[in-house]
Amino acid sequence: MDNSHTRRGQPCWFRVPKVGLIAVNDGVILRNHIGRILKNHFRGKPYYVDLLDLFNEVEFQTASGQMIDLITTLEGEKDLSKYSLSKHRRIVQYKTAYYSFYLPVACALVMAGENLDNHINVKNILVDMGIYFQVQDDYLDCFGHPETIGKIGTDIEDFKCSWLVVKALEICNEGQKKVLYENYGKPYPANVAKVKALYNELNLKGVFEEYESTSYEKLVTSIDAHPSKAVQAVLKSFLAKIYKRQK
Amino acid sequence: MDNSHTRRGQPCWFRVPKVGLIAVNDGVILRNHIGRILKNHFRGKPYYVDLLDLFNEVEFQTASGQMIDLITTLEGEKDLSKYSLSKHRRIVQYKTAYYSFYLPVACALVMAGENLDNHINVKNILVDMGIYFQVQDDYLDCFGHPETIGKIGTDIEDFKCSWLVVKALEICNEGQKKVLYENYGKPYPANVAKVKALYNELNLKGVFEEYESTSYEKLVTSIDAHPSKAVQAVLKSFLAKIYKRQK
Repeated sequence: MDNSHTRRGQPCWFRVPKVGLIAVNDGVILRNHIGRILKNHFRGKPYYVDLLDLFNEVEFQTASGQMIDLITTLEGEKDLSKYSLSKHRRIVQYKTAYYSFYLPVACALVMAGENLDNHINVKNILVDMGIYFQVQDDYLDCFGHPETIGKIGTDIEDFKCSWLVVKALEICNEGQKKVLYENYGKPYPANVAKVKALYNELNLKGVFEEYESTSYEKLVTSIDAHPSKAVQAVLKSFLAKIYKRQK
Repeated sequence: MDNSHTRRGQPCWFRVPKVGLIAVNDGVILRNHIGRILKNHFRGKPYYVDLLDLFNEVEFQTASGQMIDLITTLEGEKDLSKYSLSKHRRIVQYKTAYYSFYLPVACALVMAGENLDNHINVKNILVDMGIYFQVQDDYLDCFGHPETIGKIGTDIEDFKCSWLVVKALEICNEGQKKVLYENYGKPYPANVAKVKALYNELNLKGVFEEYESTSYEKLVTSIDAHPSKAVQAVLKSFLAKIYKRQK
């Protein structure tokens, strides 16, 4: 949907000759198997209908986040003034956090017979963790080591609404802003180099490290405030998996 | 998915400038609203979970039919020997009949508290009616009046696995088969005219009228065999809507 050429090091499915737009139908069939798998394993369980509702709700959130991302990054409409920290937060919350972080824990809660309405705090913590994860992702795209993260980042070339560019927009002066507007989203190495030089000038590495430790502390405090030790343990094991990750 | 240019007289959504592949995500969001609408209206009803399962099952059938159609009609792999009445039947049964004919009646049965496993006959009748409907569609694409059906048929140009071409393949002699192989699926009016001339030579109009009355009689007999007068009435009202339709 974002006109990419590769995903996880492989050519995108719709770019394989003989597949093309048939990939859309393949996607429908894959998505449909969520319901089929849930039916195979859980039909008859008291929580079955809640699982179906949960997956539908999270699909809606994810597709909505994808939509905000797609229309914000729209080809031919490159306009940095549309980018902000709150826009970035909204995109990654909906596009990434619900399905990657909230969904697996929500499944476990539902299957343990819990009512999700009683676990708003758990949801908020997981969504914040998902946002933190995506900020790391944006950081690694520019400052990570390609041999470690397994790909060469192209967020700058692709005019992505990355945490780095919205942070840079927030803290830069008028002259630096001009550099960003003139070079962000262009495919040429010279433009990319100018953006990276600006990121270094603004010490975005340091700003990110500050963000990382502040986020971590906030998350630990929120988790410790949860009444259940078991839930705390699950949330902390998630957090430990991603804190200060290099890939 | 079939690289069309228009649908119902409008440009296909993905061909609208600024939409492009974002249309795929829009499709996901639209599909997701089935679950949202069902939840809004029926969450808490005893049949709610059966409705969700029904829509998932019918989506799987439809996407499977679409898949058979897409890989059979694959661009650059034009091979008439792959087309047959049984292949045609399989495609239209899955791609059209379940969602257009079976689904609405199945919804009504589920909402009346019926177990769908007890209504296999109703399903079979509706699937046969859906196949009959699609055969009409194929017929009208070639023999209907554009001012009545609202579009100019292009099944011959598009190398579609139409009922007409599979019927022609079934009843033609070797010389006529050669004409089909040489002219079917080409975009030029001269080729299309040769295929249409062959259809007339084979009296496909008459063959279709024969098919239409036989199908109708079979359907009426099956419906009359159903024990419930109420179900009979629903099925007959469906049939009356489509019998000998001109558009």
